[in-house]
Amino acid sequence: MEIRDATEADWAQIHPFYKRIADEGRTYTLPPGETSDEARSYWIERVPGRTVVAIIDGVVVGSAKMGPNRPGRGSHIATASFMVDPDRQGEGIGLALGQHVVEWAREAGYHAIQFNAVVETNEGAVRLWQRLGFRIIGTVPEAFDDAELGLVGLHVMYLPLRERAG
Amino acid sequence: MEIRDATEADWAQIHPFYKRIADEGRTYTLPPGETSDEARSYWIERVPGRTVVAIIDGVVVGSAKMGPNRPGRGSHIATASFMVDPDRQGEGIGLALGQHVVEWAREAGYHAIQFNAVVETNEGAVRLWQRLGFRIIGTVPEAFDDAELGLVGLHVMYLPLRERAG
Repeated sequence: MEIRDATEADWAQIHPFYKRIADEGRTYTLPPGETSDEARSYWIERVPGRTVVAIIDGVVVGSAKMGPNRPGRGSHIATASFMVDPDRQGEGIGLALGQHVVEWAREAGYHAIQFNAVVETNEGAVRLWQRLGFRIIGTVPEAFDDAELGLVGLHVMYLPLRERAG
Repeated sequence: MEIRDATEADWAQIHPFYKRIADEGRTYTLPPGETSDEARSYWIERVPGRTVVAIIDGVVVGSAKMGPNRPGRGSHIATASFMVDPDRQGEGIGLALGQHVVEWAREAGYHAIQFNAVVETNEGAVRLWQRLGFRIIGTVPEAFDDAELGLVGLHVMYLPLRERAG
């Protein structure tokens, strides 16, 4: 598996699984009816953010975007989002992208990584982030309208990247 | 005190205290060097969001913006931001704006209100939201670079607006 910076040309391969994941309605609070252009503009980050693709045998099988979670006085905390082609689950693509993002954030000097909205019933993702060292800071009750389960919670998850002064 | 929808014309009175609060660096993770136009575009919400001003004796003394915290499958949770002219603290303006936002969100059918980033050392705000019924869901450690205190935590705060099914 290769992980490299995404280009605009990669969007044609990202968008099919992005749209499938969006339409399934199990993991992301994306705007309904998003066009391909709107989705690309959201997903392909600009500096200081960054978007990467995971490639196996020349095929884009996943993507991650990363950058500061907030501007200004919150910009020392990173955040990230991940999409893996549902047909390629179980191949370690999410894990590889997660490890890549953690390394990127550490090298870029971020103090920590925060995920703002991990669907609590997305157990594969929750376990994966916990395996990478993330812990659940708190859970906003019934904040996600899951397409199958209805209202479920959204976890805020957090991974420190350096020793705390305190 | 009157609270009414903000108009573009109100910006001339909002921006001086908005800029002062931004420059003080104690409460918001706003982009550094934000122009007045950029700040107005951020603060004056469009439908389904809404921005209001608080007026005393014809003078704009505070403002609040509100709307869905997330799009799509998270859009049943509201969020809001508040600015009160620092020269008019202690007059109950934040409380009145907070009560207004809670009523608005309830009537608009939101299930709950979430604040994503309340600076933990902003004790006046934390106490005010707790007085309105908000509770702290969790605190992201050292996520805010306070201009005087350095790294302090950001609370996620939450107020349910209806009985939970579960």
